[in-house]
Amino acid sequence: MKLSVIQMKVTESKAENLRHASLLIERAAAGGADMVVLPEMFCCPYTNASFAANAEPADGAVCSAMSEAADRNGIWLVAGSMPEAEEGRIYNASFVFDPAGHLSAHHRKVHLFDIQVEGGQHFRESDTFSRGDHCTVFDTPWGKAGLCICFDMRFPELAMHMARLGAEMIVVPAAFNMTTGPAHWELMFRQRAVDNQCFTVGAAPARDPAGEYVSYAHSIICDPWGTVLQRAGTEEEILTADLSLDRVQDVRRQLPLLSARVPEVYGYVLP
Amino acid sequence: MKLSVIQMKVTESKAENLRHASLLIERAAAGGADMVVLPEMFCCPYTNASFAANAEPADGAVCSAMSEAADRNGIWLVAGSMPEAEEGRIYNASFVFDPAGHLSAHHRKVHLFDIQVEGGQHFRESDTFSRGDHCTVFDTPWGKAGLCICFDMRFPELAMHMARLGAEMIVVPAAFNMTTGPAHWELMFRQRAVDNQCFTVGAAPARDPAGEYVSYAHSIICDPWGTVLQRAGTEEEILTADLSLDRVQDVRRQLPLLSARVPEVYGYVLP
Repeated sequence: MKLSVIQMKVTESKAENLRHASLLIERAAAGGADMVVLPEMFCCPYTNASFAANAEPADGAVCSAMSEAADRNGIWLVAGSMPEAEEGRIYNASFVFDPAGHLSAHHRKVHLFDIQVEGGQHFRESDTFSRGDHCTVFDTPWGKAGLCICFDMRFPELAMHMARLGAEMIVVPAAFNMTTGPAHWELMFRQRAVDNQCFTVGAAPARDPAGEYVSYAHSIICDPWGTVLQRAGTEEEILTADLSLDRVQDVRRQLPLLSARVPEVYGYVLP
Repeated sequence: MKLSVIQMKVTESKAENLRHASLLIERAAAGGADMVVLPEMFCCPYTNASFAANAEPADGAVCSAMSEAADRNGIWLVAGSMPEAEEGRIYNASFVFDPAGHLSAHHRKVHLFDIQVEGGQHFRESDTFSRGDHCTVFDTPWGKAGLCICFDMRFPELAMHMARLGAEMIVVPAAFNMTTGPAHWELMFRQRAVDNQCFTVGAAPARDPAGEYVSYAHSIICDPWGTVLQRAGTEEEILTADLSLDRVQDVRRQLPLLSARVPEVYGYVLP
C-alpha cells in the first residue's frame, strides 16, 4: 500500500487552501498513492480566531471538496482536520473518504490542546472547541487504521485502544510547534509505533515562520519497529512510503508485546 | 537528590560480583549519591543456565550483602535484579534497601523476556522464571518511585499505573541486547518519561562482547521532559545526575497530560 502525506502550506483563504489541497492530492495520486493524508487544519490557520471564523458543518464546502477529490482520484483520503460546526458547538474534526468519495470515518479531537509552557508555547483550544467522545478505527482494504488528531496522540491509552481494536496503522493529522516539536514529535511517533507494533503517520502543515502558531512541520512515517521510513523537512512537500502491512504481524510475532500484556497488574479493567 | 547508576561488568562468579558491586556502591556514595541503582542480573551472567545455578532465597548472600552495603554507606540502594528462589520457583527479582539496610521494596519481573527476532536476538526467560504479579511503587524522602525490570518497561500500561500511583521517577534495572538496544533503548526511556512526566532511570550491565547475551549497556537517566540527563557508553561506569523532583510538577502543570486523560474513551475502566 502506497501512502502519501501532504505537508502543505496553509494560507488565510479557505477557498485557496481547498484548491491547493486538491491539486496536491491529484499530484500524490498521480505518483501512485493509494491513501493520501492531509495535515491538521489544512483549510485555515491554526488560531482560535480562525477556527471560529472558518467553522462549517460536515456537509459544507470542505467536505464536499474532499469527497470529490477522493472520488476523482480514486484514493483513500484522510482529510486532515477542520473546524466542524454542529448544534452551536465547534469540533476539531477529521473526515476520511473512500475512493468513491463516501464518508468512511469521522473523528473529533478528544484531547484539546491546552498548554502553557514557561518561555515556550501557550495555546487553549478549549476556548473554541468542544471535545470528541470516541476512539476512531476504520477499515481499509489493507487492514484497520486508527485515526486521531495531534494532541490525542500524546495519550498512550488512545493508541493502545486502537491497537486492541485491530489498528495496524495510526494516522494523525497534527501540528506540533517550535517548543514541543523539537523535543517530542519524532520521539512520540516512533515510540507509539514500537509500543503498538503498527505504522504511525504524522501529517503536519509546512512551516510558516510568520504565522501566529508556527508548525514544527517534519511530517513523518514510521514502521512497526519504530524506524522512520520517511521524514519531511519544513517546506511544502509530499512524502511517500510503501507500507507492507505484513510487517505488522512479523514484528508482533517476533517481539510479542501486544499478546504478552498482563492487564490485572495495570490497575484497570478491560470490559 | 543525587542518583547514581552503576553500569558494572558482571562475571561468572557471584562472590566476585558482590564484592565488586559493594566497591562501586562505596565509590558512588563517596561521590555524594543519595540513591544508587545496580543493573539487571548484576550478580550472575544473563543466561538461563546461570539464573538457575545462582538462584537463592531473599534471605541469601545477595540480599545480605546489598542490605549491608546500603546500611554501611547510608544510601538508598536499588539492588538491580537477581534470580530469587521461593517454593520451587525462580523469579527475576529486584530488592530495594533504605539507608539503614532495611528492605523497602521488592519487585518480581511481571513480563518475562520471550522474544525471537529473525536474524537477531532470541531468548526465553520463561524457561526458568515464573512471573511476578504486582506493580511496584515505593516511598522515598524525595517522592514516590516506581520499580520494574527491563522488559516490564516495554509495557506502557505498567509505567502509567505507576504514575497514577504517584511515581515521580521510574527506576529500571535492565539489560537490552544488540538487536533491541540500538533500536529501542533510549527511545523507550525518553518516551516513558514524556508520557508519564517523570524521571526514568535505566541501569544496564557493561558490555561484554564475549558474553552469551551481549548487553547493549548505555545506562541512561532522563528528565520528565524526555531530555537525556546522563548516558553511559558501553564500559563499566558510574553515571550520576542531580534530580530535582520539583521538575515533575512543573512539567505536569505546563503540559497537562496526566490530568487531561479521558479514560472513558480508552476502552477500559479504572476501578
